[in-house]
Amino acid sequence: VPQEVVGAPFVDPFAVMNTVGLVAFALVGATKAIRAGFDMFGVTVVGLATAFAGGMTRDVLVNRIPLALSSPVEFGLGLFGVGLAIGVSAALESVDEHPLTLLSDAVGLAAFTTAGAIVATQADVPAFGVVAIATVNAVGGGAVADILLDRSPFILLDDFYASCAVLGGSTYWVFVTAGGSGGTAAALCAAVVVGTRIGALVYGWSIPTAQGLGLTRD
Amino acid sequence: VPQEVVGAPFVDPFAVMNTVGLVAFALVGATKAIRAGFDMFGVTVVGLATAFAGGMTRDVLVNRIPLALSSPVEFGLGLFGVGLAIGVSAALESVDEHPLTLLSDAVGLAAFTTAGAIVATQADVPAFGVVAIATVNAVGGGAVADILLDRSPFILLDDFYASCAVLGGSTYWVFVTAGGSGGTAAALCAAVVVGTRIGALVYGWSIPTAQGLGLTRD
Amino acid sequence: VPQEVVGAPFVDPFAVMNTVGLVAFALVGATKAIRAGFDMFGVTVVGLATAFAGGMTRDVLVNRIPLALSSPVEFGLGLFGVGLAIGVSAALESVDEHPLTLLSDAVGLAAFTTAGAIVATQADVPAFGVVAIATVNAVGGGAVADILLDRSPFILLDDFYASCAVLGGSTYWVFVTAGGSGGTAAALCAAVVVGTRIGALVYGWSIPTAQGLGLTRD
Repeated sequence: VPQEVVGAPFVDPFAVMNTVGLVAFALVGATKAIRAGFDMFGVTVVGLATAFAGGMTRDVLVNRIPLALSSPVEFGLGLFGVGLAIGVSAALESVDEHPLTLLSDAVGLAAFTTAGAIVATQADVPAFGVVAIATVNAVGGGAVADILLDRSPFILLDDFYASCAVLGGSTYWVFVTAGGSGGTAAALCAAVVVGTRIGALVYGWSIPTAQGLGLTRD
Repeated sequence: VPQEVVGAPFVDPFAVMNTVGLVAFALVGATKAIRAGFDMFGVTVVGLATAFAGGMTRDVLVNRIPLALSSPVEFGLGLFGVGLAIGVSAALESVDEHPLTLLSDAVGLAAFTTAGAIVATQADVPAFGVVAIATVNAVGGGAVADILLDRSPFILLDDFYASCAVLGGSTYWVFVTAGGSGGTAAALCAAVVVGTRIGALVYGWSIPTAQGLGLTRD
Repeated sequence: VPQEVVGAPFVDPFAVMNTVGLVAFALVGATKAIRAGFDMFGVTVVGLATAFAGGMTRDVLVNRIPLALSSPVEFGLGLFGVGLAIGVSAALESVDEHPLTLLSDAVGLAAFTTAGAIVATQADVPAFGVVAIATVNAVGGGAVADILLDRSPFILLDDFYASCAVLGGSTYWVFVTAGGSGGTAAALCAAVVVGTRIGALVYGWSIPTAQGLGLTRD
């Protein structure tokens, strides 16, 4: 049982990150489906799938029944994000490319990377497992959304998307392994992901290709 | 142990629904692959994948080894459906758009929605979990078939396909939660899915889009 | 505990097959991504996903935490395969269609079919389960690689790819069920897969379609 400090009530880092991630990703997924002309049922399905796919994959990998199916709260948060998307779509043009949506996506990416790193650490897997599960939790939603929208998953085409989750998950693992507290590790992880993702969007960072490095013959 | 009534031998609703679903979906999947010009091995794989994908996903989600891998009966039923598809393809033109195939698909959708709702209720998940698992069991096969055939999953483009499973799964949950018997709930669920699916096909029902509702600015 | 025979030190068939498969498939996946112009992060992800996807699906199906997430050795072997791909790409033209890459793919297919058959037999599933899990272990990597590269999975378009795994898995099951030793069954299974795959590539074997057999009316 975590100890509460007077004046600093205990906050469960997983609950915070999971809540933020669910609302942010449901919003992002639903706005993409609205722009693609899906009907309201399809918009809801794509929104919920974007919110739940990463965490469900994470839970299947650590061998437990997905939280999204066993907690009514998750469903409610997902629907709330879909509702936000409908409201925002009525107010903004080209909503899926609006800075607000890109920011929401960066925040969701950070929140889910952290949630995944926390669950993986509790499941007692080694370093690669922690980073892999954190990354799957973070990018699973966007990948499933793109498959449902019949696009190539942008997570591989966008240079600095999944790599942000890899950096954040690695930060979490290093900090916790070095003896740091879980709460601070969670904050650091989320900051690294949001920071690198926004940096990549603003400054157009990219990773070189094998062709660019002169490593291929054709 | 269920009680048998004299003159009315006990029938296991899950076994009935699962058997009907496996044969119907193997038939539908294999006819699609035949029309797409796949070789006989590919036809068999697409047929079996259509029959098994939904139930395997359901079993992975409730954390058990998939029935399709542990019961030889399932494999036999799948092969029987593939064989039916080859026979039917020899007798009918444009077999994948024939009313018989569309009816078979509606029946499979209803049977697998019900099978999923029964398994989810036994796994003791809350309302959203029951509806989500019933829907995944129902639409998983068609989604995987479309991915194998390199098409956008029609379950999202067709207005009243997955929504029929959502309505059926909700009916099952409401009826069982209100104290109704599992057998009656299964019959009701299957009837709701088949009825709404055939209604949608015959009358061309559709769900409005956000654009259609005037909820977007572009 | 397996007994060691003097002069013939015990070799774990699963460890051998798994090691060979991981390096071979990471190499194949990474060369495809290099040819497709992915950045170095994408190349690494596609290489690791090709190496790990089949075995992770296998482990999820037999209800255990994937080995790829719980063993650091697997990650190291995957990275080694990606490194090989970068080296080979610098030395060869059209590396993804080079005989060396096709051979590497055939060897990986054989190794993973065998690894899957061994795990499935230990999980005590019946014949269809053994063949299905062996095949999923073998073809899962290539299928995921093609989805990430936004291509139709070649495993269904290429006549003799997944069928080689089905033949190998069946051989393993028959031999073990007939009382043969696991080590000999593993060697036989691998030989059948490599032999049929190379035969199919060299002689252009194909399986007839329903249209070719005159089984359809259009």
